[in-house]
Amino acid sequence: MKYLSFGEIMLRLKPPGQERFFQSPMFEATFGGGEANVAVSLANFGLDVEYLTVLPDNLIAEACVQELRKFGVGTKRIQHGEGRMGIYYLEGGANQLPSRVVYDRSNSAIALAKPGDINWDTAFNQINWFHITGITPAISETAMELSMEAVKAAKAKKITVSCDLNYRKNLWKYGKKASEVMCELVKYVDIAIANEEDCQKSLGVKINANVESGKLDVTNYQELSGMILNDYPNLQMIAITLRESQSADINGWAGCLNDRENFYLSQKYEIRDIVDRVGGGDAFAAGLIYGLGAYNDKQSMLEFAVAASCLKHSIIGDLNRVSVSDVEKLMHGDRTGRVQR
Amino acid sequence: MKYLSFGEIMLRLKPPGQERFFQSPMFEATFGGGEANVAVSLANFGLDVEYLTVLPDNLIAEACVQELRKFGVGTKRIQHGEGRMGIYYLEGGANQLPSRVVYDRSNSAIALAKPGDINWDTAFNQINWFHITGITPAISETAMELSMEAVKAAKAKKITVSCDLNYRKNLWKYGKKASEVMCELVKYVDIAIANEEDCQKSLGVKINANVESGKLDVTNYQELSGMILNDYPNLQMIAITLRESQSADINGWAGCLNDRENFYLSQKYEIRDIVDRVGGGDAFAAGLIYGLGAYNDKQSMLEFAVAASCLKHSIIGDLNRVSVSDVEKLMHGDRTGRVQR
Amino acid sequence: MKYLSFGEIMLRLKPPGQERFFQSPMFEATFGGGEANVAVSLANFGLDVEYLTVLPDNLIAEACVQELRKFGVGTKRIQHGEGRMGIYYLEGGANQLPSRVVYDRSNSAIALAKPGDINWDTAFNQINWFHITGITPAISETAMELSMEAVKAAKAKKITVSCDLNYRKNLWKYGKKASEVMCELVKYVDIAIANEEDCQKSLGVKINANVESGKLDVTNYQELSGMILNDYPNLQMIAITLRESQSADINGWAGCLNDRENFYLSQKYEIRDIVDRVGGGDAFAAGLIYGLGAYNDKQSMLEFAVAASCLKHSIIGDLNRVSVSDVEKLMHGDRTGRVQR
Amino acid sequence: MKYLSFGEIMLRLKPPGQERFFQSPMFEATFGGGEANVAVSLANFGLDVEYLTVLPDNLIAEACVQELRKFGVGTKRIQHGEGRMGIYYLEGGANQLPSRVVYDRSNSAIALAKPGDINWDTAFNQINWFHITGITPAISETAMELSMEAVKAAKAKKITVSCDLNYRKNLWKYGKKASEVMCELVKYVDIAIANEEDCQKSLGVKINANVESGKLDVTNYQELSGMILNDYPNLQMIAITLRESQSADINGWAGCLNDRENFYLSQKYEIRDIVDRVGGGDAFAAGLIYGLGAYNDKQSMLEFAVAASCLKHSIIGDLNRVSVSDVEKLMHGDRTGRVQR
Amino acid sequence: MKYLSFGEIMLRLKPPGQERFFQSPMFEATFGGGEANVAVSLANFGLDVEYLTVLPDNLIAEACVQELRKFGVGTKRIQHGEGRMGIYYLEGGANQLPSRVVYDRSNSAIALAKPGDINWDTAFNQINWFHITGITPAISETAMELSMEAVKAAKAKKITVSCDLNYRKNLWKYGKKASEVMCELVKYVDIAIANEEDCQKSLGVKINANVESGKLDVTNYQELSGMILNDYPNLQMIAITLRESQSADINGWAGCLNDRENFYLSQKYEIRDIVDRVGGGDAFAAGLIYGLGAYNDKQSMLEFAVAASCLKHSIIGDLNRVSVSDVEKLMHGDRTGRVQR
Amino acid sequence: MKYLSFGEIMLRLKPPGQERFFQSPMFEATFGGGEANVAVSLANFGLDVEYLTVLPDNLIAEACVQELRKFGVGTKRIQHGEGRMGIYYLEGGANQLPSRVVYDRSNSAIALAKPGDINWDTAFNQINWFHITGITPAISETAMELSMEAVKAAKAKKITVSCDLNYRKNLWKYGKKASEVMCELVKYVDIAIANEEDCQKSLGVKINANVESGKLDVTNYQELSGMILNDYPNLQMIAITLRESQSADINGWAGCLNDRENFYLSQKYEIRDIVDRVGGGDAFAAGLIYGLGAYNDKQSMLEFAVAASCLKHSIIGDLNRVSVSDVEKLMHGDRTGRVQR
Repeated sequence: MKYLSFGEIMLRLKPPGQERFFQSPMFEATFGGGEANVAVSLANFGLDVEYLTVLPDNLIAEACVQELRKFGVGTKRIQHGEGRMGIYYLEGGANQLPSRVVYDRSNSAIALAKPGDINWDTAFNQINWFHITGITPAISETAMELSMEAVKAAKAKKITVSCDLNYRKNLWKYGKKASEVMCELVKYVDIAIANEEDCQKSLGVKINANVESGKLDVTNYQELSGMILNDYPNLQMIAITLRESQSADINGWAGCLNDRENFYLSQKYEIRDIVDRVGGGDAFAAGLIYGLGAYNDKQSMLEFAVAASCLKHSIIGDLNRVSVSDVEKLMHGDRTGRVQR
Repeated sequence: MKYLSFGEIMLRLKPPGQERFFQSPMFEATFGGGEANVAVSLANFGLDVEYLTVLPDNLIAEACVQELRKFGVGTKRIQHGEGRMGIYYLEGGANQLPSRVVYDRSNSAIALAKPGDINWDTAFNQINWFHITGITPAISETAMELSMEAVKAAKAKKITVSCDLNYRKNLWKYGKKASEVMCELVKYVDIAIANEEDCQKSLGVKINANVESGKLDVTNYQELSGMILNDYPNLQMIAITLRESQSADINGWAGCLNDRENFYLSQKYEIRDIVDRVGGGDAFAAGLIYGLGAYNDKQSMLEFAVAASCLKHSIIGDLNRVSVSDVEKLMHGDRTGRVQR
Repeated sequence: MKYLSFGEIMLRLKPPGQERFFQSPMFEATFGGGEANVAVSLANFGLDVEYLTVLPDNLIAEACVQELRKFGVGTKRIQHGEGRMGIYYLEGGANQLPSRVVYDRSNSAIALAKPGDINWDTAFNQINWFHITGITPAISETAMELSMEAVKAAKAKKITVSCDLNYRKNLWKYGKKASEVMCELVKYVDIAIANEEDCQKSLGVKINANVESGKLDVTNYQELSGMILNDYPNLQMIAITLRESQSADINGWAGCLNDRENFYLSQKYEIRDIVDRVGGGDAFAAGLIYGLGAYNDKQSMLEFAVAASCLKHSIIGDLNRVSVSDVEKLMHGDRTGRVQR
Repeated sequence: MKYLSFGEIMLRLKPPGQERFFQSPMFEATFGGGEANVAVSLANFGLDVEYLTVLPDNLIAEACVQELRKFGVGTKRIQHGEGRMGIYYLEGGANQLPSRVVYDRSNSAIALAKPGDINWDTAFNQINWFHITGITPAISETAMELSMEAVKAAKAKKITVSCDLNYRKNLWKYGKKASEVMCELVKYVDIAIANEEDCQKSLGVKINANVESGKLDVTNYQELSGMILNDYPNLQMIAITLRESQSADINGWAGCLNDRENFYLSQKYEIRDIVDRVGGGDAFAAGLIYGLGAYNDKQSMLEFAVAASCLKHSIIGDLNRVSVSDVEKLMHGDRTGRVQR
Repeated sequence: MKYLSFGEIMLRLKPPGQERFFQSPMFEATFGGGEANVAVSLANFGLDVEYLTVLPDNLIAEACVQELRKFGVGTKRIQHGEGRMGIYYLEGGANQLPSRVVYDRSNSAIALAKPGDINWDTAFNQINWFHITGITPAISETAMELSMEAVKAAKAKKITVSCDLNYRKNLWKYGKKASEVMCELVKYVDIAIANEEDCQKSLGVKINANVESGKLDVTNYQELSGMILNDYPNLQMIAITLRESQSADINGWAGCLNDRENFYLSQKYEIRDIVDRVGGGDAFAAGLIYGLGAYNDKQSMLEFAVAASCLKHSIIGDLNRVSVSDVEKLMHGDRTGRVQR
Repeated sequence: MKYLSFGEIMLRLKPPGQERFFQSPMFEATFGGGEANVAVSLANFGLDVEYLTVLPDNLIAEACVQELRKFGVGTKRIQHGEGRMGIYYLEGGANQLPSRVVYDRSNSAIALAKPGDINWDTAFNQINWFHITGITPAISETAMELSMEAVKAAKAKKITVSCDLNYRKNLWKYGKKASEVMCELVKYVDIAIANEEDCQKSLGVKINANVESGKLDVTNYQELSGMILNDYPNLQMIAITLRESQSADINGWAGCLNDRENFYLSQKYEIRDIVDRVGGGDAFAAGLIYGLGAYNDKQSMLEFAVAASCLKHSIIGDLNRVSVSDVEKLMHGDRTGRVQR
């Protein structure tokens, strides 16, 4: 089984610790991005995974490729192209003070890439599973067209396609609304992953939940997921993450899965000292992809995904630096965090 | 509308992160002090504010002036004088372990300044609002005399005077008790700001609250504020902060305002992962001064002050690095701390 | 009164802040180890204490000795010997993610030390109290023999012996089970200190508590301590720490003491933002040893031990950097963590 | 006398100390750019200087403006516009290993700015001196047109124009060669500043010097400067920096000035432990601009410029953090670097 | 062409910057070791290289493997075994103060490995070139036997064998002298690499040079290399590095090569601000191995090796982070270190 | 033999690495001061040494005492008194840019100490050697009187007195010139230590050397030292350091010694990459004091002092972290700085 994840990877610049921008003349400089985060997670779970993106040919992009390779992600399909490396600036929040992201990702090499730039026969060579998100079609019109080309090629090759809808309100600037694009793209997807806001903004499907309230009513999610499965008969299943944002530090975290036959609801985790919540959704997606291959029952698949992403909230950076055994330990009930020595 | 804040500004030396003194041979070196913190907050809220102090003529004081200027605080009225730059050492606490402050502020240039050293006509040129605190009269006898001179000159010029009572038990070493001085100084004040301990120690007004208990009985505050307004007919209003100290990390935070006509009580915020609580009261004072000019209703003025100071607890350093829109977002109810991207 | 603590001291290597191993190419490098932590705590409480260990003759061990001396611990009885300096790598956890320890302490100088290497007449010169733990007999067969030699020599000299049972499941690799050794060693002990797991694994005494559950039933501890006192008539008393592990950050913390006459239960502390829990047990042991000399009533002795170790959870590193007055302030009820200025 | 400097200002990202890119996941994050460096230098020399640029309206650009304001540079003429903030990545070299710069400045707000975007009447209000460089016309065609508009407007207002030719071979990508543009732009300049390569690449004027050799033949510079003054009768004078690059750490540094009447050659400085040579040329330009106003003789003007820029090589970052007295001390002969205490 | 390098890789712990041990409680933590440094260098030059070692199965060793993989070194042949990960502590020197190394590498997994532990058929699968050094046979008797087994197996498979003699006086503790072992091992080597001290201590061949003097007489090296080639008819060539140690910061650096037909002497580099000289010899070895495959003439092969290792002295850490183009730029004469932008 | 050193010890605050004040909001925080530096050096050489000073009773001073104790300096004679802890701010220089010191040491506890505050019988108990410098009499009138009291008491007890004249032009503010005081104090001294400027400013003895020139004429020093020995018949000998300041990084360093019988001149060291020259003179003084006890010939005594202080220039901080064997290695000729492994 060989996996391919496709999308952007950015330089992430964050002030040290809990500082606001430029309190010190210093940035923690790492790499991340939704689809790359999934690839690294899958590699950390021991899977054979390739990453596909377009990067400029410079020393910063070279360091980025090295970082992926460090985790065992295959990087030989990464292409060079015109354009820059995208950047996002992140300022951590606490309590009532939200984290803030400043995007500087226009004109990135992947945003400038267009249909025809990628040879999909080569890219999909030996690949069984393709992962894409709603971010790539949001960054530029050509990247959207390239994304459509990708999922169509994948389906033509009978490759399983997973897609994290991942709505980003500050992207989608090239003239199309998210739902115009995503409703079409999802027709080529087998496994959909989303949160409540994604469902609403990317697919136009609403329920009566208020994401700003910090509290979620779990009972509505069966209905929401059912509606989407009805609209898209190609979907095998949809998984939805459930985040209760009490404050920047304190979140409830759970997930649900609807495979048309049953609706599964996971355990809920209380995370009271969030270290870094960026990449939490990506960790869920990777956990689900792993779980689908590793377990026989849907409940376990879902529990693995939720436990994996729960742990991500305790790790600095976009990347989920945990192993299968770390996740299974939590999934099987040990939440005490006792020192392991 | 032009504001002048007057007092000391010190070098603040703190071990990195959660370390105790000299666990590493390193100090985080920033600047702060009650009145300067107010000035920076006002500048961050977009107001036209000058800072007035006396500093030595050396490279450290020069860096301090640069820091104020960085935020847009006017620094041209700052004077040079004999004496040193005051320092305070701060060690952060956690849980049951309190933060600790070691003062090294004797013989600072502002402490050595005396009546006559400041030309108040120049200092108050174009000024409509003057802010002072109970700290300056506490640092030396001459600084006390200078403070009295200041408020009298301000009143003579019909400048609005706000005063944060700010009782500091380890100052007041020159032979007078706080209440001997402050009861006189407050006669020249229009807007008083305080916490429960300040009322008691600076003005000698007591209620049956135990500040060490970590729990506050809100109902007593209407009585307390009323007693002070009775004693000082010059006061237009008094605002009092309400802190519930459950531990070094977990505080409840609210405020109340008595304008003789009504008693207003703010929302209460639960702050469960305090990043730095130093400057919380100063952020409240600045929020109130801003609010008084920006809103028509007293409740909003108070809510702005409390929300602004609530956010301060999530920011490292003395200075409240938030904008009006940050504060209004919280004040209008969004406490979820969700990532803004 | 002069104290001697005996055991290993290791180099502790920890990634900065909340990072996982090698997120940055950097380690915080400090020193620690159960018995040395006790010695430093006793010195911080103002007692006259010597540390006894065996170290290699190199620059790293020299720095370790300097660190002990810095706190006023006597280091002149420390011997040089063949072998290395033990190391432990520590990765901090958060929430559901546990802290992890990687030991690299085989072939340390103390592990290679054997009976006869230490002249106990010299080592015990002027000593009234000897502290040892269950770690030293766990690291090697010769260290176990040396430990037995030590307690026998101490008893022969009528020195009071305290022992923290301190079970470590990843040590005990030389062919003996902990209980085979510790049941014998405890016969030479006056004051035993333990947690529930230690009682079970080191002495083979069980109660129906589940240490993995994060919740402890206090009522069982009277029975447990009673059973041990019955088995070992030489013991004057046994103190047991009670940790409730809700997560890596949130622990309940208390202790109990059984002196055959009475069973004492301490106040319980809720620690909600643990900074570093390594060394918490050692801080308890040191607090108890101090308390036994400083107070007349058992309840105060126990309360001092629990308060001292509660504070340790808010301090980075193995060492408990608090004074008697810090501990007494908490012990007498001030848990508010208000800034001391 | 009021000065205006106009151009880009970028975020500068550099690995800590002597590390290569991403040896640590950390960047030193400061701000710099040729024209901004000149503005800060002039402010440090006590002059009244404004900076003019176009920046995006985001938190990073806001921090950049604060940094300029910190030094007393006027920032009220800075405009917001579409586009990003330019970035340059810098890796320090040593010995035979060169420093490396990776530019990421395409589509910056200043590069997207076009004629008409700046109201020159407002921009030049009260301005007597205008500084521009050859970098701005290199970054985009519209920026080139804007630059031409700027110098023409300046001349129309009889403002003195200084220009540092500053050839950058990796810019100039929009289809024009440097010499096509600069030969025209220089016609509106009063004071030209350059190094040997700038003369050749920007103005097409060559002498027989080999900039790669690390050694410069001073005698050719009189001829070179004379040729340029002949070609551009509008020029009052031209100053040229003379750098001998023995290695990344060891440079000789001097300058010459030709004012049509005389040719002046400065003292030469041997800089053997270069701390940061970026911004050395900008420090020279600022020193010359200051010198022209401060001294009566050309030799002193030149010596000030060379001494100021010599000192820059010992300071980290783009900005020359020295005062007039620091420069004059060196200029008058004290090169010993003895501790001042 | 596929390369295999075999030996130890250690954790390297160094105080930050120019600090001595424990001036700060901090270590820079990287990985290095003679043979691994060669492997990373070869990968940086674009070659297909595998690393072979034995490591324990823990989180620190896992990070080490990730680091190798980051550079593109193949890590799949690395084996797990009993024993620890070796460590070396490094303190940087300056001027007359030497750098110091404290070894803690006893009982490492590779030191405990013994003949039979490695399947050489698998290890040498597809390998054309095998690199080994004189360090591995120095660390333990079994490692010595394993090294002998390795070179014999390599020769049996007609694999080219290169060996850096690399004498380390503080190893060789198991009872054999270096020369007893190395004189035998070199009989299986094709390409020998050494410095003057290695020749003397590992092979017992002396010339009249004094390595402590800081000055080397180049003329003796032809004689020295000739003597060794005479003694070992199997050797195709021997390359010797020539270091003139004027101080910890200032070294002259050159190399020579004797291929029996001719004696080649390289350019000499003056390195006046050494950043980190550890790994300089390894960079030479890797440069030579690369050069032998890349160039047709011996002089170029040698010049590449010397230029590559010259650059290493300007890079922090054991690893030579330079590309072929970086080296060729220097080799072709550009020593000026001018900023590349 | 037991030594006592007496004077101030200050907190030293320095920006990280080569930064200027407040480029980062960070200070390296260590402790130092002429006499304390001597005490630590002597302890590092294995001597039995006590430090005597007056410090305030706060957490910063407590850390300072711990730092002295770490090196084995006896701290039990240190007294608490009114006043603060002195501070000096240090900015490192490079090349032509000088290091800068900002003193903030007024009103320190030692400056406020006065005759009678120290019981000299207790202080000198078992002491054979007393070290004092010209700094203590410079900081205040009472400290001057206390210094006089000290040397007189020492002479009365027949204790050998060494004094480093150590002229500081920015002290001596209480109304006396250095020479008025020092000419009297030196009458109680046995061993005088000085540089050229000290001789001139403290004792009023001049030669025709220009300390600003960076070059020293050694031949004048015999005359200079002879003049002083003539003036002060009580002096057994005088040692003078010879610094050639070529730049902030590059100094020549040597010393001479006149014992009335002979004039000894040391080797000269070229220090080309100075790491930190503060404390260089103190290292010389300590080296001389050690040498006088350790060697039989004056030349060796002097050479030890010069070699010890030469090494200090390569170590960060005031303290000379070298051992006798480090110094002897250099003193016996090994200047190559080769890695010791």
